[in-house]
Amino acid sequence: MAEVIIRNKYVVTKSHIDGAPEESDFSISEQLLSLKPTNNNNKNVVVVKNLYVSIDPYQINRMKAHSSSHKAISFSAAILPGQVIEAFGVGRVMESGHPDLETGDLVSGLLCWGEYTVVEDGQSLQKLDASLGFPLSYYAGGVLGSSGITAYGGFFQVCKPKKGDNVFVSAASGSVGLLVGQYAKLFGCYVVGCAGTKEKVDFIKEKIGFDDAFNYKEETNLKSTLQRYFPKGIDIYFDNVGGEMLEAVVENMNAFGRIAVCGVISEYTNSYLSKGKLDMIGVIYKRIRIEGFLSIDFDDTLQQQFFSATTQHLHSGELKAIEDISYGVESIPMAFIGLFRGNNVGKKLVRIAED
Amino acid sequence: MAEVIIRNKYVVTKSHIDGAPEESDFSISEQLLSLKPTNNNNKNVVVVKNLYVSIDPYQINRMKAHSSSHKAISFSAAILPGQVIEAFGVGRVMESGHPDLETGDLVSGLLCWGEYTVVEDGQSLQKLDASLGFPLSYYAGGVLGSSGITAYGGFFQVCKPKKGDNVFVSAASGSVGLLVGQYAKLFGCYVVGCAGTKEKVDFIKEKIGFDDAFNYKEETNLKSTLQRYFPKGIDIYFDNVGGEMLEAVVENMNAFGRIAVCGVISEYTNSYLSKGKLDMIGVIYKRIRIEGFLSIDFDDTLQQQFFSATTQHLHSGELKAIEDISYGVESIPMAFIGLFRGNNVGKKLVRIAED
Repeated sequence: MAEVIIRNKYVVTKSHIDGAPEESDFSISEQLLSLKPTNNNNKNVVVVKNLYVSIDPYQINRMKAHSSSHKAISFSAAILPGQVIEAFGVGRVMESGHPDLETGDLVSGLLCWGEYTVVEDGQSLQKLDASLGFPLSYYAGGVLGSSGITAYGGFFQVCKPKKGDNVFVSAASGSVGLLVGQYAKLFGCYVVGCAGTKEKVDFIKEKIGFDDAFNYKEETNLKSTLQRYFPKGIDIYFDNVGGEMLEAVVENMNAFGRIAVCGVISEYTNSYLSKGKLDMIGVIYKRIRIEGFLSIDFDDTLQQQFFSATTQHLHSGELKAIEDISYGVESIPMAFIGLFRGNNVGKKLVRIAED
Repeated sequence: MAEVIIRNKYVVTKSHIDGAPEESDFSISEQLLSLKPTNNNNKNVVVVKNLYVSIDPYQINRMKAHSSSHKAISFSAAILPGQVIEAFGVGRVMESGHPDLETGDLVSGLLCWGEYTVVEDGQSLQKLDASLGFPLSYYAGGVLGSSGITAYGGFFQVCKPKKGDNVFVSAASGSVGLLVGQYAKLFGCYVVGCAGTKEKVDFIKEKIGFDDAFNYKEETNLKSTLQRYFPKGIDIYFDNVGGEMLEAVVENMNAFGRIAVCGVISEYTNSYLSKGKLDMIGVIYKRIRIEGFLSIDFDDTLQQQFFSATTQHLHSGELKAIEDISYGVESIPMAFIGLFRGNNVGKKLVRIAED
């Protein structure tokens, strides 16, 4: 068979990024990919045409000068300037060296911020079942992908909710926050969220069904704000932001409160100043548990529960998947930069190709 | 029966205490107690002659102007100036309205910083089994009392150790720290402690058997200090001090590290400045669990395990109970003040009477 050469465009960083990302930090590179690699030692290589790629805040941590926190796991390895950037996504197999995947299969998994991905080990990809009838975008780091399992596992396994618990969600209009709020409502909790604009606050109350919500940018004293929204205290905090908000939550937490630490967006782009100074005496007297987690740790049983519950809720219409989609590889840098400017509501994705 | 009147001396605070306690913050009061209360509506009242009373750092929190943290549980209720101060202790029953207790019984439980205690509900007292042969002082908040169960439950139930784990204990020459280090060694962990003088450091290494120890006051950069003592990272941190040390531990923690928050002595006498600013990004990537706990929450099964294991270890000589005893009610204020000056090694007690 003749070798087919394709031209691949992909996003790279120009250097390490230590503050908020700017458009000038990124550029678009091109490479030529062979669909029949001549040096085919690794039988498992799969070439994927990317359809949707996920735009996630945590990627900024991988773009910083290397920090000790990130050594703990491999997918958080540093992104090197000029190199392909791995990201969750959905695509179609163009060429497969892996026995379980064929040309034409739809797959989800770690792809990249580009038009095509050379996946070294096809084992890491999941074949999608198109017969379920969901949009492909749902699997690209969204409601049926990493955001979904993060919200579901973080809420049910880390927070261990009881019906009637008072739940607070920060960055509640973001991809994970929107889902946590909905899972918590479906489970029977009282749910308050915070977000950074009036539009987002109205959206999560009126369209999503949070019991209440507030714009944290309009509040001058977060401790009293939380006291106002939770006169009976907070039982569960699903933390996407860290910093001062976490500090204020600890002060307003009930005995045996649980905090799932999912994201620290307030710290991703600054450094030391915004870190919360937690009242550890309160942590003791109120027996508060604060636990960091990553969705990659959830076991198969939980993954199956998540998928089964979530697809049912989606089919019944009880759960809404909110997406914010840009188009084309060239739009990736601005889509990413927008995350830190509060531009998105729901899951931020870039659609790379129509198929 | 004729009414017997006894004169009781007890310690009181003169006002709320917000910084480090001073001798001038305390005074000795006197009251007359009747051994046959004429107004005997509550049948369960027990009058106890105190033999040993426990001197614990957490009491300072109860002496402050009231803080929200303390509302969560009753035994941490504010200590009011001029009022009797409850404290763990051991004593002999002088008069009992409770059916299970008789005059002459030895009991442990919440007594007070005084010569006698009027216990409103005898149910709260535990009768001691003198036949086990341990010194009475062991039950007065020490190795067989609150320090013991705090160390045992905090280590085994909250930290969930595995053999070979790298364990760090702060305030390691204190009552709880000394026991945690010994339980961890007996269980098969590698244990490093820190303390505030060379003598304490030598003591916990040479007499108690910690694998290593350091004087934190001689260290200028706690993060690099911990890296030096734990080149392979920390799996478990038993936190008695909070503040900067906690911050440095998070930076040196391994994936799935556990932090049992038992005390925050660095914050008890100052307020905001010394609070640690935790690297919450590290908490996520390393999936660190930080959990506050109180010994009152440990269930009967754990209490029994603790008592059985600890008495065996004491009998075999594998576990050492270190005590630091002062004498007489008048010595209580200085004994307490000394806790915050680092004066004690092991369990601080005051012996009130010879029996």
